[in-house]
Amino acid sequence: MLETVPPGPRRVDSLPQPYLLFLGDIVEPAYAKTAFGLRDWAGERCVGEFACPGATVSTGLRNLTPAQAHAAGARAMVIGVANPGGQIPAAWQPALLQALEAGLDLIGGMHARLEAIAPLRAAAARLGRRLIDVRRPPPALAVASGRRRSGMRLLTVGTDCALGKKYTALALARELRGLGVDADFRATGQTGILIAGEGIAVDAVVADFAAGAAELLAPDAAPDHWDVIEGQGSLFHPAYAGVSLALLHGSQPDVIVLCHEAGRETVLGHPDYPLPNIEEAIELNLRLGRRTNPRIRCAGVSLNTARLDPARAERLLAEESARLGCPVADPMRGGEPFRRLVQACLA
Amino acid sequence: MLETVPPGPRRVDSLPQPYLLFLGDIVEPAYAKTAFGLRDWAGERCVGEFACPGATVSTGLRNLTPAQAHAAGARAMVIGVANPGGQIPAAWQPALLQALEAGLDLIGGMHARLEAIAPLRAAAARLGRRLIDVRRPPPALAVASGRRRSGMRLLTVGTDCALGKKYTALALARELRGLGVDADFRATGQTGILIAGEGIAVDAVVADFAAGAAELLAPDAAPDHWDVIEGQGSLFHPAYAGVSLALLHGSQPDVIVLCHEAGRETVLGHPDYPLPNIEEAIELNLRLGRRTNPRIRCAGVSLNTARLDPARAERLLAEESARLGCPVADPMRGGEPFRRLVQACLA
Repeated sequence: MLETVPPGPRRVDSLPQPYLLFLGDIVEPAYAKTAFGLRDWAGERCVGEFACPGATVSTGLRNLTPAQAHAAGARAMVIGVANPGGQIPAAWQPALLQALEAGLDLIGGMHARLEAIAPLRAAAARLGRRLIDVRRPPPALAVASGRRRSGMRLLTVGTDCALGKKYTALALARELRGLGVDADFRATGQTGILIAGEGIAVDAVVADFAAGAAELLAPDAAPDHWDVIEGQGSLFHPAYAGVSLALLHGSQPDVIVLCHEAGRETVLGHPDYPLPNIEEAIELNLRLGRRTNPRIRCAGVSLNTARLDPARAERLLAEESARLGCPVADPMRGGEPFRRLVQACLA
Repeated sequence: MLETVPPGPRRVDSLPQPYLLFLGDIVEPAYAKTAFGLRDWAGERCVGEFACPGATVSTGLRNLTPAQAHAAGARAMVIGVANPGGQIPAAWQPALLQALEAGLDLIGGMHARLEAIAPLRAAAARLGRRLIDVRRPPPALAVASGRRRSGMRLLTVGTDCALGKKYTALALARELRGLGVDADFRATGQTGILIAGEGIAVDAVVADFAAGAAELLAPDAAPDHWDVIEGQGSLFHPAYAGVSLALLHGSQPDVIVLCHEAGRETVLGHPDYPLPNIEEAIELNLRLGRRTNPRIRCAGVSLNTARLDPARAERLLAEESARLGCPVADPMRGGEPFRRLVQACLA
């Protein structure tokens, strides 16, 4: 265990905004998930899009040069592309340099770090611009204190990775705000951080500080304020369960929502690992979460039914809700089941 | 979750040995725990000790200059001191430079990094010597695969931090080797790494790679080979439980030994957190450990009775063994209870 705390302020910095979304030179829409996510969840903070010659993918936002975007209020250009390998092609450099010259900071969430590219580093230093890698944790994290904090907290947890914990948290935070509740989405992964404009990539934090990062991310707040925290991984995942437990302990959630994908039976990429059933996943999260918040409860289930037709999805949500005795909704489909889930969170 | 694996070889490097133990300028024996631990557990790899003028603490090993130690076979000088704050005082620099000049590498396990001290860095570069910070994880860790590995594994787990998981693992490995069993102690913290001569400080690894580090640390082995893995933290610790779960999942232990200190009732430094009882701690470790090794079992309990007199300790070990229905021993006291615990591990 690391006994010493590095010096310095401990807070989560906000990203420069609004954004210009950069689409690189891609022709495959699947690689633009980050840009689409920003358009869908942070549209009011996206002034437009920009791409290299030859790109065919568009978010539908207006096309602006970096200079036009800066004039329209943009303060950063975000790399909205997540291509396989997470590299930044040399072909993008003229566009990235153009953004720096136009007065925009650059924000990346890919594996490759902007700072590792010498021409960008030189231009940023010359122009006084910032190169921000959102995966890089803040420098002054502390180990978790375990101290109970004021305010309400909700954490999305899952039976597995990549089945809707981020989207569920975003949808819940949006719905709560729509009801007049003072709620913040708290991002724990790179896409969430770009959407929220701040956050900590908990999985990129040194293990000893992971729970402490979750404490920092959802600090003391007003008694009726809700932090809606993006979950990571799963307590049942053979590689990432430690991250999930650190996030559960550090978040100290009052409420969890269990996320699952209809029909998924094994851990993504680990076919030898069957997923737990929903009841078991809820019970284990509650048992372990009780350690730092004895009042923890499960409000219901977020079921990803994207692969089902609407009628089949509706039937499944109703069946699962009756079987489990709690609200079961697909936030992407919304409707009455989702409203019941939100009410159960507030209950 | 980090989807990309950094390039490079994946293995645990061994430290240069034998060691010369450096005691700084200390006059307080409690700060020399690292040197005493090396003398007690790796004495055959310690050629002597060296200190600054004015130091009064000794390990009892012969006093050698770095040049004499090098002539006697030493290949590195280890900073055997852990003073509060983990800093390296300027007063030590002449001695550290003397070791580099004499042909010894320098090994540190403190918070302060040897490489951060410019004169040491310059001298090491000039002389072709290495500055090794054992807390620094290897550069090419992968996320855990969850794949079952050949060979047997034992992990010490605990109700809390700092109550004997490392000493229990060291004692078990020594006893197993004494019985002719092919056993290796696998270090997961800085002191353990210095003793073993290799290992990974799992708590210093980026959270996504912590379980992967445990997999790397205890790789495939012969069916009758035992890895005895040093545990870290506790599943019940509000700051470090994520590290403990990653280590449990990645270790895939066949056998756990639960470590506890007699009389400790709350988490060290967290008086609001009561410790779990022994049965609960065993049950939760088995339940979660079963995820990556369905054959996991608990061989017994290691009870730290250092604060009790011998008669009271003997009585308590017997009482707890009867109550729990399994071997309960204090490895530091050895004797019949410890032999029974070792036999239960092998059973």
